[in-house]
Amino acid sequence: MPETVLLGFLRRVESTSRRLIITNMRPRATPSQDWTMTIERRHVGKRLSGLVIHRAAGTAYLAGQVADDPTADISGQTRQVLALIDALLAEAGSDKTKILSATIYLPDMADFAAMNAVWEQWVVPGQTPARATVEAKLAAPEYRVEIQVVAATPNAA
Amino acid sequence: MPETVLLGFLRRVESTSRRLIITNMRPRATPSQDWTMTIERRHVGKRLSGLVIHRAAGTAYLAGQVADDPTADISGQTRQVLALIDALLAEAGSDKTKILSATIYLPDMADFAAMNAVWEQWVVPGQTPARATVEAKLAAPEYRVEIQVVAATPNAA
Amino acid sequence: MPETVLLGFLRRVESTSRRLIITNMRPRATPSQDWTMTIERRHVGKRLSGLVIHRAAGTAYLAGQVADDPTADISGQTRQVLALIDALLAEAGSDKTKILSATIYLPDMADFAAMNAVWEQWVVPGQTPARATVEAKLAAPEYRVEIQVVAATPNAA
Repeated sequence: MPETVLLGFLRRVESTSRRLIITNMRPRATPSQDWTMTIERRHVGKRLSGLVIHRAAGTAYLAGQVADDPTADISGQTRQVLALIDALLAEAGSDKTKILSATIYLPDMADFAAMNAVWEQWVVPGQTPARATVEAKLAAPEYRVEIQVVAATPNAA
Repeated sequence: MPETVLLGFLRRVESTSRRLIITNMRPRATPSQDWTMTIERRHVGKRLSGLVIHRAAGTAYLAGQVADDPTADISGQTRQVLALIDALLAEAGSDKTKILSATIYLPDMADFAAMNAVWEQWVVPGQTPARATVEAKLAAPEYRVEIQVVAATPNAA
Repeated sequence: MPETVLLGFLRRVESTSRRLIITNMRPRATPSQDWTMTIERRHVGKRLSGLVIHRAAGTAYLAGQVADDPTADISGQTRQVLALIDALLAEAGSDKTKILSATIYLPDMADFAAMNAVWEQWVVPGQTPARATVEAKLAAPEYRVEIQVVAATPNAA
């Protein structure tokens, strides 16, 4: 083996080792990571944010969604709420097949069947989330449904 | 040092480097991982899934559990609900000592003490979850308690 | 290249490789980690814990907080609840700018504006959490507000 070949090979090995060290030093979800940087907020208001993404865990928390037009009936309001959820999930790089949990608040449980009819058209068969539905009055009497969602997201934007 | 020994050693170093590169390329919870594969659902219905496991975060979300036999009183219904939670947590590779948070809905807060009596027998001393209990009517009037749980799970099945 | 220099170099390469192997064997949030060790509980009671930290995901779950002195009006009770949340978040190595989601229960939605006035003074502009507020009676009639929080935390204490 000529010395130049040997030296070339050794340089390649050393360069590989350096790359491996650098790889091992890249930030990831460990104690050494600056975890505070992994929170992203969208539709940030003075009271709440519409969407908060916790990148370290790969999870998005949506504000409870109510209809933009609360003059609609329960079917219309449910459709509006689910469209708002679709839009927020898209901003998080997620979608309705990645919802982990949904909590549904109905001021009148008599709306349960009508809400479910729209909901069942919307969810993707085989990929339905964990869910709880309870009766609770909402911030304004015209709202007939509010839905709070937690979804999986990628660990980076 | 004979050249054959040197070459043998260098081959060992290079092979080690290759294994290290391969190790570094293994999927893990980083931006490069196919995070969508880390969601597992069980008891999947057209409306909701009983259990959704978010493996990337090591978290399981259970659907709000109500009694299978709602003719039972608050003690009996609470016992049934906690047994359902035990079963779902076992499917997630978790158990009641790994519950992170529980939200308890009671249609009648007068049942608070009776629910708590059963709950306190069930939880493991020293490993009680964060919890909130509020009054809310449920999907059907015969249900006297509904419990929604988030628990820690292993990051892989 | 003298043989001693070559041997010194090769020893350095091999030692680097060993360090890399050791680095790769360090525990992290993967299937091989003892994930059950990553749950920390504070203010542990027989019924619930005030704070549960899920280190693997970097998430803290707080028990629903109510006022220590429920003779206060809605403003006073909201202030007390937010102070309790500040204290629990500090114990988790977190703070109010890292809240991911808040669920606010008001037994009387007529208190919505007064609660919000205190809340908006408390949250940090630009870092508001996802939030849902619903009407629900609480464990005791004198409580006028209960707040349940999920926040981001470091992945290690």
